Amino acid sequence: MLRAGIVGLGRMGMTHANNLAFNISGVKLVAACSIFENELDKAKENLFVEELYTSFEDMIDNANLDFVVIAAGADVRPKMVEYAVKNGVHTFAEKPLGLSVEEIEEVLSVIEENKNKTKFQVGFMRRFDEDYIYAKSVIENGLIGDVTYIRAYGIDPASGLDTFVKFAKNSNSGGIYHDMSIHDIDAIRWLTNKEFSKVWAFGANFARPELDEVGELETGIVQAILDNNIMVHLVAGRNSPHGYQVETEIMGTKGWLRIAPVPEKNLVTVYDSTGVRRECSASFPERFHKAFVEEIKSFVDCIINDKNTKVNAHDALIATKVSLKCKESLEKNEIVEI
Amino acid sequence: MLRAGIVGLGRMGMTHANNLAFNISGVKLVAACSIFENELDKAKENLFVEELYTSFEDMIDNANLDFVVIAAGADVRPKMVEYAVKNGVHTFAEKPLGLSVEEIEEVLSVIEENKNKTKFQVGFMRRFDEDYIYAKSVIENGLIGDVTYIRAYGIDPASGLDTFVKFAKNSNSGGIYHDMSIHDIDAIRWLTNKEFSKVWAFGANFARPELDEVGELETGIVQAILDNNIMVHLVAGRNSPHGYQVETEIMGTKGWLRIAPVPEKNLVTVYDSTGVRRECSASFPERFHKAFVEEIKSFVDCIINDKNTKVNAHDALIATKVSLKCKESLEKNEIVEI
Amino acid sequence: MLRAGIVGLGRMGMTHANNLAFNISGVKLVAACSIFENELDKAKENLFVEELYTSFEDMIDNANLDFVVIAAGADVRPKMVEYAVKNGVHTFAEKPLGLSVEEIEEVLSVIEENKNKTKFQVGFMRRFDEDYIYAKSVIENGLIGDVTYIRAYGIDPASGLDTFVKFAKNSNSGGIYHDMSIHDIDAIRWLTNKEFSKVWAFGANFARPELDEVGELETGIVQAILDNNIMVHLVAGRNSPHGYQVETEIMGTKGWLRIAPVPEKNLVTVYDSTGVRRECSASFPERFHKAFVEEIKSFVDCIINDKNTKVNAHDALIATKVSLKCKESLEKNEIVEI
Amino acid sequence: MLRAGIVGLGRMGMTHANNLAFNISGVKLVAACSIFENELDKAKENLFVEELYTSFEDMIDNANLDFVVIAAGADVRPKMVEYAVKNGVHTFAEKPLGLSVEEIEEVLSVIEENKNKTKFQVGFMRRFDEDYIYAKSVIENGLIGDVTYIRAYGIDPASGLDTFVKFAKNSNSGGIYHDMSIHDIDAIRWLTNKEFSKVWAFGANFARPELDEVGELETGIVQAILDNNIMVHLVAGRNSPHGYQVETEIMGTKGWLRIAPVPEKNLVTVYDSTGVRRECSASFPERFHKAFVEEIKSFVDCIINDKNTKVNAHDALIATKVSLKCKESLEKNEIVEI
Repeated sequence: MLRAGIVGLGRMGMTHANNLAFNISGVKLVAACSIFENELDKAKENLFVEELYTSFEDMIDNANLDFVVIAAGADVRPKMVEYAVKNGVHTFAEKPLGLSVEEIEEVLSVIEENKNKTKFQVGFMRRFDEDYIYAKSVIENGLIGDVTYIRAYGIDPASGLDTFVKFAKNSNSGGIYHDMSIHDIDAIRWLTNKEFSKVWAFGANFARPELDEVGELETGIVQAILDNNIMVHLVAGRNSPHGYQVETEIMGTKGWLRIAPVPEKNLVTVYDSTGVRRECSASFPERFHKAFVEEIKSFVDCIINDKNTKVNAHDALIATKVSLKCKESLEKNEIVEI
Repeated sequence: MLRAGIVGLGRMGMTHANNLAFNISGVKLVAACSIFENELDKAKENLFVEELYTSFEDMIDNANLDFVVIAAGADVRPKMVEYAVKNGVHTFAEKPLGLSVEEIEEVLSVIEENKNKTKFQVGFMRRFDEDYIYAKSVIENGLIGDVTYIRAYGIDPASGLDTFVKFAKNSNSGGIYHDMSIHDIDAIRWLTNKEFSKVWAFGANFARPELDEVGELETGIVQAILDNNIMVHLVAGRNSPHGYQVETEIMGTKGWLRIAPVPEKNLVTVYDSTGVRRECSASFPERFHKAFVEEIKSFVDCIINDKNTKVNAHDALIATKVSLKCKESLEKNEIVEI
Repeated sequence: MLRAGIVGLGRMGMTHANNLAFNISGVKLVAACSIFENELDKAKENLFVEELYTSFEDMIDNANLDFVVIAAGADVRPKMVEYAVKNGVHTFAEKPLGLSVEEIEEVLSVIEENKNKTKFQVGFMRRFDEDYIYAKSVIENGLIGDVTYIRAYGIDPASGLDTFVKFAKNSNSGGIYHDMSIHDIDAIRWLTNKEFSKVWAFGANFARPELDEVGELETGIVQAILDNNIMVHLVAGRNSPHGYQVETEIMGTKGWLRIAPVPEKNLVTVYDSTGVRRECSASFPERFHKAFVEEIKSFVDCIINDKNTKVNAHDALIATKVSLKCKESLEKNEIVEI
Repeated sequence: MLRAGIVGLGRMGMTHANNLAFNISGVKLVAACSIFENELDKAKENLFVEELYTSFEDMIDNANLDFVVIAAGADVRPKMVEYAVKNGVHTFAEKPLGLSVEEIEEVLSVIEENKNKTKFQVGFMRRFDEDYIYAKSVIENGLIGDVTYIRAYGIDPASGLDTFVKFAKNSNSGGIYHDMSIHDIDAIRWLTNKEFSKVWAFGANFARPELDEVGELETGIVQAILDNNIMVHLVAGRNSPHGYQVETEIMGTKGWLRIAPVPEKNLVTVYDSTGVRRECSASFPERFHKAFVEEIKSFVDCIINDKNTKVNAHDALIATKVSLKCKESLEKNEIVEI
């Protein structure tokens, strides 16, 4: 039984905490850390976590953890990763690993120094989603020929737009590309084994023009080219009317794949006065529920059987670099080389 | 230019009249007959029909027609067909040809006697719908193997239920099987080249229990067996929540076909707060718009090129026989042989 | 940690065994029983089961189990259930509970006598499938009005037809209704809270006429009426060309639901030379993977928190009664009251 | 009865000729012109055209036409339009109106000078397609809020790629944007009432690298911005594996529309060993069959009732300007202002 700890109990953290507590055989969630007392109360009551901490260092020093999941804010994440890794606690960290390339490079060097004693994995859960895995296997089996074009949408539901507008007035999301497209960027690198070579980004606010004032975007698009001329189109957004739209299309010379053109919530079709419809996944915890379990299962497997993790710090660094180049392109309004 | 006349200018008749006036090359709609003055006014104003009649015999005697389309009520239809046919005017008649088997047999004998001088076709438009034609060609090319099972839904939209309830208080629809399933019965005979051998029908009223009192059904089902043991399931109804549901499924030993499981109105998919949806055809004139044109085009082709029509009076007779056996089964609540 | 045992390690049993070993927190699969040595070897190697038995009584007597999952053949199932229940081991048994109504009634009386000390649940996993649960909640919230009609298909993939034909030459499946429709019968009772009142069953063999000789069916249909006149149509089959087709349609006075009209394997749509397609679930372990986990989780919850199980022996008895009435109707070729 | 003539009897021209001969009431196709004798033979035999010409001027001078449809090659089109228009024959011309902006501007001035006596319409048939018309009405009714983003694919089927490669070795298509995206550019202008303000185009050849040598593209993409910041993404291609993919997505602040995400050929769904699939439209004459009829019907209506045509020469000019800017961007590999 591996002893697990968690830090950060917001929506993302609670998703992981719940999985660690109930959905992963061979793991026991023994410790939780948060700066919010009510979050710790919930962890105790609902998840039966025994050791509660308000200091991350305290948890690492005292809880005798085999591994820790870091889902605290991106501002404190780099220091936490470094502390856990240096102290020999296997570390799973949410993306992004930091807000600047320099910060991530520093984290990366710490991870490198300790790679013999501590495993590290970053939370690009799409690589563990059965739909994306299926698509990758179809591509690798040559069934769609050579990949020529990829379109990736990552668009949060409109139901969260109000909350985002409030958040954006006081906080920095890192920009829509670093906050959202980063998953698409990683997925595309993983699906194609190619790197981004140039981007042109553009964005605008229609539903909430006040986002202009805080430098945030409701919708941002990118035209990108990969190093072998695969053409890429990204749309990141925060105002999807019907649910959580994470869609990826891959065109090949012999066939195309569309992953989740409709983010179907289940297998039920409804016939009613609106026509004939499918209900949709409303959020990332719903859409990627299984992938969040699978990424931790895979990490646990790497710990137990001493394997390399499937998403490493280098992947996190590259995805951040590309997303920040998109931001640069947006600001300069020109094509940027990577 | 063939000279065409029409009798009956209700919804069905107006659909034909409009096609005769505007959508069929080589035909001119020269005469219209109705007992309702306002319908004749519309025909004159909107369809530019020159000769207007309130008596069918008058029209046949005086309008010098090449052919007539009979869309008047089923009660007067048999006499009209006989009169037109005897007078050498090629005749296209809506289904059913009459309300009893005897009545239709009589009409049939008149049609037979005059078959050398007058063409006759009955309005089973599904045989001219591109989706049904496509399905038949797939079956005949052996692509789904041997047909084992057919399911056919013919369900009118809920938007017409109020109107039907009012109608049913004063009029006789002929029963749900004769009124609605008759199209499915004909389509199944045409798709399989097999005849019905036994049926068990059942029905009930849930949305409008008052239909019990007038002996009508909101929903009626039939389990039927064809003469080579193909299994058949029919659902006829008057309360479809989303539109006009005419759906036919054909299972074969190697593949299945579903014709219009969603009665898609067009190629547009809508993503909105209800989820992701297709809007639906709202009525038979919308769903079968093209088939109504094609059946008349085919009839005109038979007249001009002296061919046999593709749906004859015998087909009308058999479909009525089967639908009346369904009614008998419903009333006796037992399995009825045909 | 609950100590679990399993008997029967065929496809169904191995599905349960795997879940008990890896997918259910708070449970340890400690014992397995089979009459096939190679199955026990697999359980040891792949599932790390420590105690292996060839006698069921031995396992119950010695393995100190909290609960047992019975997935052995229907012929030995009744005796096993009785032995486990009498010995105070909570029991989860696959359906059907026996091959005759009398046999199941006997089992039922033993379960009743011991209900204070042992929990019992039967394996109608559809009640734990998220799609069926969603449909039930939509119905119970009144969103589709009153239920008027249900259509349920349970059709095994054609890929298994050869195997079935071989099996049928030497063994008795119990008939297609008892073997397959039983799940649909239970699901319909559960969705509607109504009982079956009459049935007419019919079946035929087209792909494999040799099944006639052994009294088995490739495709069997049923027209049934529930006690409040809800109309029901069942299709059971063994020759689905595209995958495992478990589809249920519920028509209400205000809306309809279709559960899995396409048994979509995942969220990927493929565009290739065949057109645009969805790949399909190929088998029951794939389609109901999550439901198989959830039904055991629910059973475990009932054990730990002393709750009533969600599917009891009475449900198993009724479903068997109805399915055997379908068989009787098929044999007599008449409508049978229940 | 309007007297119609046609010039050019290739695939596009024959589509129009057939419609003029058989599918449009009130029109008679009296004359056809082609430099290929065999095409004229076909027109005579199959379409019963009486007057056949090898010289366009001859036809205009002698056939006493009310209107002419110009479907001859883009190289000769400008001169033909000018000749017909100057001679008072109402003119319907295929797009593009010419291969350079200057050429089209010259044609435009001739059309302007004669606008009181001759009607002119250009063949942007999407404006007459029921799906596009439906989408426009949904947008204009405010049902999807403000338009924020449009994605448009215009991708020819792979079945035509060989033919195109041969063609491209000897001929100039005008480039993929002028040849194909021009329809999307016009549709977007029409749907939004906005103009293009900047573009970045990129393209590559994967299936047929030899297209590099003749300066043609298998797939070309464009990122464009409209004058109010609506974001636009275009994909033009010649290698669609499943059929003719003309798809347009419109995202608004309250809803999205997807026109033909699957270019469904009909309403039939096929269940077979490939999964569950829809067959697709294989070509533009199939996909836009009705739109080709409707655009001519609309043109005829403008002639008869002296109305302004719905697509004028100015629209043709603008669409060409934008598509040529895409070409310029592709060649310079930079963002180009319009």
